[in-house]
Amino acid sequence: MSHLSSKHLLGIKDLTKEDIHLIFETADNFKDVINRPIKKVPSLRDITIANVFFENSTRTKLSFELAEKRLSADVINFSSSGSSVKKGETLLDTVNNILAMKVDMIVMRHSSPGAPHFLANHISANIVNAGDGTHEHPTQALLDAYSMRERVGDLEGKNVAIIGDIIHSRVALSNIFALQKLGANVMICGPATLIPKYLSSFGVKIVSDVREALAWCDIANVLRIQLERQQIKYFPSLREYSLYFGVNKQLLDSLNKEIVIMHPGPINRGVELTSDVADSHHSIILDQVENGVAVRMAVLYLLAGTVG
Amino acid sequence: MSHLSSKHLLGIKDLTKEDIHLIFETADNFKDVINRPIKKVPSLRDITIANVFFENSTRTKLSFELAEKRLSADVINFSSSGSSVKKGETLLDTVNNILAMKVDMIVMRHSSPGAPHFLANHISANIVNAGDGTHEHPTQALLDAYSMRERVGDLEGKNVAIIGDIIHSRVALSNIFALQKLGANVMICGPATLIPKYLSSFGVKIVSDVREALAWCDIANVLRIQLERQQIKYFPSLREYSLYFGVNKQLLDSLNKEIVIMHPGPINRGVELTSDVADSHHSIILDQVENGVAVRMAVLYLLAGTVG
Amino acid sequence: MSHLSSKHLLGIKDLTKEDIHLIFETADNFKDVINRPIKKVPSLRDITIANVFFENSTRTKLSFELAEKRLSADVINFSSSGSSVKKGETLLDTVNNILAMKVDMIVMRHSSPGAPHFLANHISANIVNAGDGTHEHPTQALLDAYSMRERVGDLEGKNVAIIGDIIHSRVALSNIFALQKLGANVMICGPATLIPKYLSSFGVKIVSDVREALAWCDIANVLRIQLERQQIKYFPSLREYSLYFGVNKQLLDSLNKEIVIMHPGPINRGVELTSDVADSHHSIILDQVENGVAVRMAVLYLLAGTVG
Repeated sequence: MSHLSSKHLLGIKDLTKEDIHLIFETADNFKDVINRPIKKVPSLRDITIANVFFENSTRTKLSFELAEKRLSADVINFSSSGSSVKKGETLLDTVNNILAMKVDMIVMRHSSPGAPHFLANHISANIVNAGDGTHEHPTQALLDAYSMRERVGDLEGKNVAIIGDIIHSRVALSNIFALQKLGANVMICGPATLIPKYLSSFGVKIVSDVREALAWCDIANVLRIQLERQQIKYFPSLREYSLYFGVNKQLLDSLNKEIVIMHPGPINRGVELTSDVADSHHSIILDQVENGVAVRMAVLYLLAGTVG
Repeated sequence: MSHLSSKHLLGIKDLTKEDIHLIFETADNFKDVINRPIKKVPSLRDITIANVFFENSTRTKLSFELAEKRLSADVINFSSSGSSVKKGETLLDTVNNILAMKVDMIVMRHSSPGAPHFLANHISANIVNAGDGTHEHPTQALLDAYSMRERVGDLEGKNVAIIGDIIHSRVALSNIFALQKLGANVMICGPATLIPKYLSSFGVKIVSDVREALAWCDIANVLRIQLERQQIKYFPSLREYSLYFGVNKQLLDSLNKEIVIMHPGPINRGVELTSDVADSHHSIILDQVENGVAVRMAVLYLLAGTVG
Repeated sequence: MSHLSSKHLLGIKDLTKEDIHLIFETADNFKDVINRPIKKVPSLRDITIANVFFENSTRTKLSFELAEKRLSADVINFSSSGSSVKKGETLLDTVNNILAMKVDMIVMRHSSPGAPHFLANHISANIVNAGDGTHEHPTQALLDAYSMRERVGDLEGKNVAIIGDIIHSRVALSNIFALQKLGANVMICGPATLIPKYLSSFGVKIVSDVREALAWCDIANVLRIQLERQQIKYFPSLREYSLYFGVNKQLLDSLNKEIVIMHPGPINRGVELTSDVADSHHSIILDQVENGVAVRMAVLYLLAGTVG
């Protein structure tokens, strides 16, 4: 098999286990490429990709842009600030306008869950979901799983704890889907106010004691507290959060075992993670960033094979 | 003849009929190019173009940027937000600074009518006016006329109605000039409050009944209601506008004739046009967008021949 | 010698006189390049450069971007507006994230003096300081000195007056360092409220009479009044400033000597300089802009030789 089962990447939910492995193997090749002195390949030389970001996203956009440029694609950036979107245009009209300019693929970040899925029913270009609200963010889940596999090998039977602010996270759901497809066991840990009720039906263990989660897991994916969405009056405050849920070196040392620590960034140092953890040998946080480019190259490359 | 009569494209007013036909024939070639798998030509490979936008414009800027990249030009984007313009620099100093960096062509959007014409008297680089207030927006008029010609053939003797908010429109004047140079008959239709008094001296028929305009015309170019410039207290409100001037399928069907429907975008669906018209076989709205890239490639290509 | 004594360009303070001459000679070559019809060289074809601007800067950013593109580097732009920086990420984490995506060089503008120096102690990529608050802005000082040398030859023994708002200037300190290293005599002239106290220990003459400064100097580098930082209630007001410190043609003519006039831009015409001076044969203001691209190409090229 050498192509994905779908012409879009809307979410992890639609991928088969074979799709995920194909992406990983393709990313292995591209990781070699970006670590060579010559970091570019001509694979998508005649493809035009539009990065359509209706919400700001520095790091995801930069990662996609580098992936596209290293594949030699032509890149167009569209952001909604001051754009036709503000003038009352519909999402479909905006995207159809971009496509009429002979754009082959759309990478889209949107605040509304389901926005890329809606588009996929109405346009013929390939769509990559770069985050639809707190629903799916499939490339992040793929780069996370890829980084875990790189560190600990096959994820079958591995224990992965996702710790922190699940309810506001853009990446939690996609992570759960990817890990379960790859055979890992998933535990969710965080304050009850930051865990959505519906998760209990997803076949994941839910605990509220971070020590219990760390004692159980091989890998801890520590999510960011969304300072900007958090209301100060609700539990937990940042101080309370770091006190009860923060991961620090003392806690890790007391468990006396190897744990891989991940974080999708940007880190609030001293809140979710102390610096002596974030910068320790446990951490693969910067590997995640590096692998993000390789995994996105793989996704774009494989989808482009289905163009037309 | 193989070059334009001017080294700038400031407005349709300065173009000859031969200029317009030359642009159309060149655009025909570029339309073939952008519909090939390989959408690029090396024509402007050693040319640097600066897109200098003192006002936001998502779709026009994107269209120019794609046109430039498909001609293999080097592209620099300058927007005034947070720039030296805010620090009290004059327009001429800003542009001279950009040119001192060895930029060959300037594509400029400015809020003041005449801004590009002023510049043309003081600098030697080619200038393309991408809209100067509500004065001229020549590439839009060219792509509109090109799209009409593509659908109905030679415009000589054809009847074209421009319907809607004329007074706030960036494209109405340039459309009138282009259509008259090409021999079409032009009618203006809209509420009296949205039609400038001086238009009566331009040799266009002015009517206020949209049914009369549609009954008369072969092609209706329906302009956007500028929600953001419209004051709610004046007639017409959006509801009144769509009731008395909106184009819907029932109205078109009742006329029992073929009419081509155009719109410069972004569409306010349900206001100027209902969706069953915008998405019908009457509509060439997305052709306009596609042709925009080809027409802009033609303009840039022809002007570049006059560099130096 | 064919490389710089440091792998970063943090400030003029760290450069040797030999470094500066090497940059100038390299810039001579690149100035030839950008004045050819083909303005590009493949020198940095496999290098990725990130322009990381935590403060807005239209002209400096544009100049760097053009320099990078003419060296055939891959260019990534990162600006802090709406970015992870706003979400509480540390500077080092932001930069490490960018570097993890396999970026080779960082060009950085930051509001805090010392920010690039701090980074240089923690990362392995080359850093070019594009302005750290009112501390150093080394490429501006280099292009200024390069432009002086181009007009008057060797700067050894030449008299250079820096006139105006020294205290809010991003370029004054770097200019003083560069000029002194090249053997020029430096005089500072401005209202006492706009001259920092510590300058007196820098071996520069300080005067408050602009006529005295002009009578003394071969070259006057007239700095911009920072309208946006100036408080209206303090002396001098703009009117007072232009009256007592503004450079106009009458003043220059009365001195009956050749003076070279420079300005880093953007000019407040009628405040620091009248138009009949800014646009006269005295002025090398647009040469400064042109030379900026060549000098930045030289710096990037020389630092890239030290990559890895």
